[in-house]
Formats: sequence, C-alpha cells, structure tokens
Amino acid sequence: MVTETSNQTSSGASGTVSQLTVISVDAMGGDHGPAAVVAGIALSAEKNPEIGFIIHGDKTQLEQLISKRHGLADVCEVRHSDSVVTMDDKPSNVVRNGKDSSMWSTIEAVRNGEATVAVSCGNTGALMALSMIRLRKLPGINRPAIACLWPSRNPGGFNIMLDVGADIRADQEDLLQYALMGASYARNGMDIKRPRIGLLNVGTEEHKGRAELKVANDLISEASKGANFEYVGFVEGGDIPSNRVDVIVTDGFTGNIALKTGEGTATLIREFLNAAFRHSPLSRLGALFALTSLRRLTERIDPRRVNGGVFLGLNGTVIKSHGAADETGVSAAIKLAFTLAQSEFSEKIAARVASVLVERQDNPSIGDNNGRTE
Amino acid sequence: MVTETSNQTSSGASGTVSQLTVISVDAMGGDHGPAAVVAGIALSAEKNPEIGFIIHGDKTQLEQLISKRHGLADVCEVRHSDSVVTMDDKPSNVVRNGKDSSMWSTIEAVRNGEATVAVSCGNTGALMALSMIRLRKLPGINRPAIACLWPSRNPGGFNIMLDVGADIRADQEDLLQYALMGASYARNGMDIKRPRIGLLNVGTEEHKGRAELKVANDLISEASKGANFEYVGFVEGGDIPSNRVDVIVTDGFTGNIALKTGEGTATLIREFLNAAFRHSPLSRLGALFALTSLRRLTERIDPRRVNGGVFLGLNGTVIKSHGAADETGVSAAIKLAFTLAQSEFSEKIAARVASVLVERQDNPSIGDNNGRTE
Repeated sequence: MVTETSNQTSSGASGTVSQLTVISVDAMGGDHGPAAVVAGIALSAEKNPEIGFIIHGDKTQLEQLISKRHGLADVCEVRHSDSVVTMDDKPSNVVRNGKDSSMWSTIEAVRNGEATVAVSCGNTGALMALSMIRLRKLPGINRPAIACLWPSRNPGGFNIMLDVGADIRADQEDLLQYALMGASYARNGMDIKRPRIGLLNVGTEEHKGRAELKVANDLISEASKGANFEYVGFVEGGDIPSNRVDVIVTDGFTGNIALKTGEGTATLIREFLNAAFRHSPLSRLGALFALTSLRRLTERIDPRRVNGGVFLGLNGTVIKSHGAADETGVSAAIKLAFTLAQSEFSEKIAARVASVLVERQDNPSIGDNNGRTE
Repeated sequence: MVTETSNQTSSGASGTVSQLTVISVDAMGGDHGPAAVVAGIALSAEKNPEIGFIIHGDKTQLEQLISKRHGLADVCEVRHSDSVVTMDDKPSNVVRNGKDSSMWSTIEAVRNGEATVAVSCGNTGALMALSMIRLRKLPGINRPAIACLWPSRNPGGFNIMLDVGADIRADQEDLLQYALMGASYARNGMDIKRPRIGLLNVGTEEHKGRAELKVANDLISEASKGANFEYVGFVEGGDIPSNRVDVIVTDGFTGNIALKTGEGTATLIREFLNAAFRHSPLSRLGALFALTSLRRLTERIDPRRVNGGVFLGLNGTVIKSHGAADETGVSAAIKLAFTLAQSEFSEKIAARVASVLVERQDNPSIGDNNGRTE
C-alpha cells in the first residue's frame, strides 16, 4: 500500500508504507518498454526509500517485472490499463479516445491528488495535450511551458530553456511568467539559489529584437528587483550553453527550433567524430587509447542524456522522459520528479506568479511602453 | 589597369588587362588586417587569371603588400581610403559618417558598376546597413536577406539557410522571395541543378506552426510547379544539417537564433573534445595518434569555415567573409564572389522574382487563405 504524506490513501500490491512522496509513472510507451521503466524505478527505490510509486500499464507484465526485484512491491502500486499511447498517435485522438491508456491513468493519479508528479517516456504531444486538459493551468498562468535541460559550461553542467514547444506564441506577459517559472524550477529542481535569467534575442543591445521582447525585457527586469533571481538581460543563441545564464526564456517556436538545431548539430558532430576515428589505422589506434575520454565526451553531448522536458504551469508537474531512456535515464527523471514533489514546486510557482501579478496591479505603468524604441 | 567585360574602364597600378570579372575587396577591418586579405587575393589570382580586383584601404600599405607578389599588381587596382570601420562601430554611425572608409568605397565600386560583387571581412551590421542604403533593393524584392552556409550531410558538404539576420520580420511573401533567392543562390553559387527547398517550422505536419508559415507553404509549393527547384515542405531544426534539403527558408529572427545556437553547440563540443583528450596520459597519447583525423574533424565543424554570409536581393551581391578569415578563407569568399559574378546572379534573381510576381497577379487566389487552419 502506498500512502502519501499529505494525500489520501490508496491500496497497493502488498504491505503498508507511510510518509512516502508518491510519483505516478507511465510504464508503457517508451522505446525499451516496461522492463526499462521498472528497472529505472528499482534503481530509484534503492537510492530513495522515501519514494512511493503508482505504476500504470499492463498489470500482469508489470507485476511480474516488479516481483523479480526484492522489496520493490512494497513501494509500488500497479494500476492496470488496457491500451498504450504510441509515438504515432495524434494528440487530439488521445484526448478524445485515450481514457483506457496508461498515459491517461498516469495523469489522472496527479489530478486526483494521489501523486504530485507524473513521469512518462511516451509521445510528447499526447502527454502535453492530456496534461493541459486534465490538469488545467495554475491560477494566473496564461500559457504553460515545456522546460528542457541544455548541456552547458555551468558548474552543474546544464542550463534550463523554456518554452521549447508547448505553445508557438508568447507575448510579453507570457515571457515574464516563463521567467518566473524557470527561476522557480532552477531553484527547486536544480538547487540554484539565485538563478540568472536571460531573454533570448538576436542581439544583446536593448534596442534590438521584436517589440514584445523589449517590453518583456522591462517586465522581467522590474520583477527581478528584490526577487531571488538575477536578470542578465538579452542573450543570444551562442549563450545558450554558456555560464552567463542558468535559465533562457523564449517563445515555444524559437525554443523548439533552437533545441532541435542544437541536438541536430551535436548528432552531426558525433557522426563526423566517428568517421574521423575510422579514417586510418593510426586514428583507429588513437581512438583505442582515448576510448574512456571519448565515451565521456559522447555522454556529455548525447541529446538523450538531457533527459526530460518538464511541463510547467499546470496543477501538478509532468515530466516527459526521453522515449529512448534506459534505466539510468528513467531513474534520473524520477529523481527530478522526487526533488520537485518534495519542494512543493507547483504551489511555489502559483504563489510567485500571483505575487508578481499583485505587484503589477499596484504598479500598472510597468510594461505599458510597448511602442518605445530607444 | 582593370577593365571589366561589360563595364567602364578604370585605371590601375600598372599594365592593361581586359575581359576580367572585377571583384571589389575591402582589405581592412578583418581580424588579421590587410596582409591576410592580400594573401587571399594572391591565392585567388593565381588560380583564376580572369579575376580583376579593386582593393580598398590604406594605399601605401596595400601597394607594398601587392608589390611583393609577382604579377599581382597587373590585376589589382588600389583605391585609397582614410578610415576603417571597426567591429565596434555602430551601423547607423557608419552610414552617416563612414564615407571615407574602405567599406564604403568597396560598396561604391559595385554601385558604380565597376565591380559586380563586393567582399569584406568587416563589421557585419555596418556592411549590411551600407549595402542596403547604397545598393538598394532589387525591383520586386521587399526584404533582402543574408544567406549562410551550414555544414551538412549533403554531397557538397553544406546547406544554405536564409534569412539569418538581415531583418527580424518576414511575412509569407518575404518567405516566398527567400525561397526563390535561395534556389537561385544554390544553382549559381553552389552548382546544385535542382535545389531542394524546405521551410523551417516546429513540425513537418501541414497544420503546424504560425499562420504565415502555412500560407508560405502554399505559396512556395505553387511557385515550385514547373520551376527548377523542388519544394520538400516543412523541415525542423534537426533537418538543417541533413541531406533532405539544400536550402532552408526562415525569418531573420529564427535564422539568427538557429545559426548562433548551432555555432555555440559546435564550439562547446570542441571544448569538451579538447578537455577529453587532455584528461589522462593515455588519452593524450590517443590524441597524438589521431591527430590528422581530429584536425579534419575540427575543420569540418569550425564555425569559421562556414565563411561568408551572402546578402541577397540587392542591386549587386555583397559577401561578408568571416572577420577571422585567413588567406584560405578570403580566397574561398573571392571564389564564391567570382562564381556569382560570372553567373550574373543578381539579374537572375530579379528576373525570377518578377516572373513569380506576374504569375501571382494572374492567379490572385494563391495565398489568400491566410486564416485557414486545416
């Protein structure tokens, strides 16, 4: 049985556990099937005895996989679902006809308050659509966003970028909200006390870029006064992996193009690197000597390592783990889910956004200089 | 003396040469100074005796550099200018006060019809601003664009992307014009007989993306019928270095972010690669064996190798060579300038755009479905 600290009781496979932080996990839909997901769960359970799991998918298959791991059944509850959302399923179709899917059931456990964070390796579009419709937006949030991690020169090794594709539009108010949500994510998920926020633009001068970016620049700058984040102003594409910022704010169109361009470039270079090392007997020998170093490099630039987009701005947090995630990847996503759940992340975002909205109502002049060009 | 095939005569340092294709070269403003530029010119002159040069900058310095190269003075004319545009100069200031600069003089030679293509390693913003104001737009072109080359899996090793920063806006008509200009550039500059054009978006499905992209999708598709290019539809960020397309069309905001993100990612990976090889004695030994292969890789992914943005849509072509270009880089930019000049590139773009505009007037219904969402 799994019992969450602050929520209702639900009956599990066996035993009784209290004081658990419960994560809802979709075991189906990933490239490596439920075996990889259960292996990842087992890895997390070993490291964090405070996590409880509600696992969604084919009951027979899942219970068999769980029973093989010593003690795992004690912290897991299995919820049977008849169908699986595939990578090719259309989001609109999943929203209409996906009620018996493991993905739906995974989100539903968060909606019901049985779990605070959901994790799935499945179809991103469907997961986003289901999350939006079933969990609904946090009060005060206009557009939810997807935040991703980006390999960087930061001490922690990663920067956060949002939105990378929840919505192709974002006006100045949305960009301000992304900044607040991103700062909250950096503090609670990545343990950065005072995150540095940058706004993505085609130049760093204040007169550059689109009109809504100039206004957002003023809004975020104003909101940063006395807040627990620092606003560094405009940043460029080349700054995304830099140590100048921790959080890069942009609209979902630009963010998605940047993310896929970065991933595409990394993949191209890995291909070139492999080709370079196969080029001659001498270079093959060189590769042999440098094998460990090269493996470390490959890990650092592998787009799959940047595991998981996080959906921000909903009533409950949803983590999209990469479809190709193996047990290490799944375990990393669960660790992030656990960290965010413990910090009561959604509530903090809601409070933060609300406080800025109140401030804005007291100071209605901020952001009203839409037309200025200096 | 330098005489262009179809233009007026101008008096050079010595000798008489006819039937030359004349390129106007700004010898100042690059990171390595006029020595690297003159060395690049000498390299080009050796390979292509049909090129004539008008070289702009400090006369004493340039004549000294040229006199050291056997025979170079015969194909060069030096134009003295008193000042140099630096990398920190503001474009608006250069346009107002830059009349005595080598950059101004370089553009002026194209404006006067003495040369057909200009090459400069100087300040991009200033070069663009000067080119726009002094050369003016081609008839029928609404927004000129900057096209860049992108390392790719194509047989030729590069894809073309435009606009990468001439203008942050682009509506459906602009995107159509970029497609036509890009196709013309691929044919005349890269010798691709039937270039494949893609429109950058956040997904490849027809219903995705912004409204203007859906209309541009129809416009370009329509224009491709019976034309000497193929339209492959929407492409994503990950397709930029792919062998699916030869030309990627996007607005200057998105293009600039993508370009700098790609460059930033490549630079980050090169740093990681160097660190990986310095990691242990064994990996340092490995690097030694693989040195040649690694150098080839570095060359393939070095952003500086992608030498030169080309300004399209003006009365005359302007090539921005990278500020850090050495003699090989300058020579590559001049070769591109020569190829484009010989193909009477600007005239072809103007004719192509005019013909599509006429077609559009005969078929006013195309592209009028702005609001449709299917």
